[in-house]
Amino acid sequence: MSTATAPQPTEVKPSADLPKPPGLHWNVRAKQPVDYSVSMVRGLLDLENSTLARACGGGMGKSFRCLLVIDAAVDQLYREQFAEYFERWQIEAHWQVVQGDEDAKYLEQAVRVTEAMSRMGILRRAEKVVAVGGGVVLDIVGFAASMYRRGVPYIRVPTTLVGQIDAGIGVKTGINYGHHKNRLGAYFAPELALIDPDFLRTIDPRHVANGLAEIIKMALVKDAALFDLLEATVGTITPETLATCGSALSEVLSRAISGMLDELEPNLWEQVLERSVDYGHTFSPSLELRADPPLLHGEAVAVDMAICVALAHLRGHLSRHDTDRALKLLQGFQLPITHPIFTRDLLEEALADAVKHRDGLQRVPLTRGIGSVVFANDLTTEELGRALEFVDTWRVGADAKPVGAGV
Amino acid sequence: MSTATAPQPTEVKPSADLPKPPGLHWNVRAKQPVDYSVSMVRGLLDLENSTLARACGGGMGKSFRCLLVIDAAVDQLYREQFAEYFERWQIEAHWQVVQGDEDAKYLEQAVRVTEAMSRMGILRRAEKVVAVGGGVVLDIVGFAASMYRRGVPYIRVPTTLVGQIDAGIGVKTGINYGHHKNRLGAYFAPELALIDPDFLRTIDPRHVANGLAEIIKMALVKDAALFDLLEATVGTITPETLATCGSALSEVLSRAISGMLDELEPNLWEQVLERSVDYGHTFSPSLELRADPPLLHGEAVAVDMAICVALAHLRGHLSRHDTDRALKLLQGFQLPITHPIFTRDLLEEALADAVKHRDGLQRVPLTRGIGSVVFANDLTTEELGRALEFVDTWRVGADAKPVGAGV
Repeated sequence: MSTATAPQPTEVKPSADLPKPPGLHWNVRAKQPVDYSVSMVRGLLDLENSTLARACGGGMGKSFRCLLVIDAAVDQLYREQFAEYFERWQIEAHWQVVQGDEDAKYLEQAVRVTEAMSRMGILRRAEKVVAVGGGVVLDIVGFAASMYRRGVPYIRVPTTLVGQIDAGIGVKTGINYGHHKNRLGAYFAPELALIDPDFLRTIDPRHVANGLAEIIKMALVKDAALFDLLEATVGTITPETLATCGSALSEVLSRAISGMLDELEPNLWEQVLERSVDYGHTFSPSLELRADPPLLHGEAVAVDMAICVALAHLRGHLSRHDTDRALKLLQGFQLPITHPIFTRDLLEEALADAVKHRDGLQRVPLTRGIGSVVFANDLTTEELGRALEFVDTWRVGADAKPVGAGV
Repeated sequence: MSTATAPQPTEVKPSADLPKPPGLHWNVRAKQPVDYSVSMVRGLLDLENSTLARACGGGMGKSFRCLLVIDAAVDQLYREQFAEYFERWQIEAHWQVVQGDEDAKYLEQAVRVTEAMSRMGILRRAEKVVAVGGGVVLDIVGFAASMYRRGVPYIRVPTTLVGQIDAGIGVKTGINYGHHKNRLGAYFAPELALIDPDFLRTIDPRHVANGLAEIIKMALVKDAALFDLLEATVGTITPETLATCGSALSEVLSRAISGMLDELEPNLWEQVLERSVDYGHTFSPSLELRADPPLLHGEAVAVDMAICVALAHLRGHLSRHDTDRALKLLQGFQLPITHPIFTRDLLEEALADAVKHRDGLQRVPLTRGIGSVVFANDLTTEELGRALEFVDTWRVGADAKPVGAGV
């Protein structure tokens, strides 16, 4: 067309004068409130306990629906109890069973959960997704809930120790992608996390140690009293005693949860990248994804923590006595402190990836005494090598081997 | 194990008395601040315009990286200009070309964008993703940015009319899944949206109408003056006049943007499901996904709006005169108001899906006079049928045909 002959819209008198270049600007400002609860509740599946029913919107005499997404292992053990519970409370539960192992933590699994939401035709707000299982299932379901219609409410019922004190109580969700742990995901808070230690009765002892690794982490970075309590209870923690949850273990669990939530709450979206809860999570992601046979998350974290204990010691942040205590506590819970593929090369590579994740700086949390943290940005390859050597040759009470000059 | 003989952890004296059942409770409360700008800027790619360079963190003499994710159609037209611009400002742009048609709006495309982030090793906060293109590309890239490491910053450069006044300035991202529009996605605000009308010079006239549908929507639901302005400029709006953007069209664009942001800002996460900007978006998603040959988004919205205009008229909310004006304006911009597959069955089905999306209620926005909205929750199938009949038989100025009893 010829703009010379076409009628010019500028001939219409605008109702207001508009500023000319550099342009028009608008600012959009808002705050998204996040508000959720974490509750330790005994007997969640007791027929007279209304907690879960109320969380699903039920319990008021009328029937309700929910989508139950449950770990295959938990389903096998508790299917009947869940079914009876939902029947008692007139909740029509749509059942979706998912695999709970780390291998299963991929995008297609999360998409499959959204398909279950679609099939059920779940209402966008009133009907809830209930995720029951370990950290993997909670991460998958949380991510699915974050994506479906850009977010539908969900409830977390962690059934493993690591889920109950770590993976199940924060707002992070995610899946692994292309040999990277949690490469894709969302910050997406549940409405509620319900912690019932009774579920721990049926977990494997190896999964007890797996969760204890994260509890030891909390003790090392911010709670010396929890560390003492772990030393005092190390021989007694079993699936059975955790489920019974006497006063000592109740304190272990509640201190671990409190400590974690204290750290998370002011930094839910990780605006601050110096995070003490990242302790043991710098080198472990690469180890966890590559170890064959596979390591549990907490086992990889334990190997990472051992190196960080050594790094702190070699930097003079941690006494030899406390170094021994930390490594001994890890071993006391049958956690590994070394691994054949945990070499200097792997440490270097993992650190490089962590630097990208931490926006260009190492920000590696190290203990400064037990219960306190300092962040390092200047770790060198040589230093990593010396720390590896320290852990490899460590024996309780042995004199420190000379592991390099200037230490 | 026998709990009778095992050492009981409860023998350890806890350092604090803990409450017994009903349990321990923690509340986590936080507010996520969202703060972004929408700027209308002329000559975004002028070599001396530092706006985009500064948005990427550059412009201060040192070299910087960004990931440019660009619509294939835009890349073809503007590749050289972008390349020269980045060179001038010493920005190392990693180039990722994506398809921009609605068919391409699926999960794998978003995942591919995250793979580009991974390959580049983009820093988590300092390096930006720049999305350039129409609504589809902005939606895909925004969703990818929301997922990658649970969120990396991105900048939107919408190059289509619908992108510049609607899809490109809010916080919604998403992809289609299983015959459902935007079934998966995230609310994820950009750092900045940069609107340069110059890009509109190269769009197809059909895409002008596509964007105008959303502008008409804003006029119908909240801005009678904008409606008047559209009536006055209807014959003059072309890619060329939009790009030149004299005072009248500058006012059309800025009123549309202002109106949209006014509606979005207090309800960014859609806590309130009565949304006037959902006008024309109740029945159109199903139409848009099924029409063959495909309809553009705005075309499907126009067909939906025509029905809603009729519904409002038949309910007595909209005079015959304003009804005629609205339908005439749609037609004036070459927008369809009917479609062969837009039948009573499809309307019913679409409404049922909208009800799920709107948590159990219809919440259909209808005009109450031009520039104001009322929400309906009690539309019946018969009423939908009468509205369809009204639009099918509508001619400007014709007497209203009797389309049913009691109207």
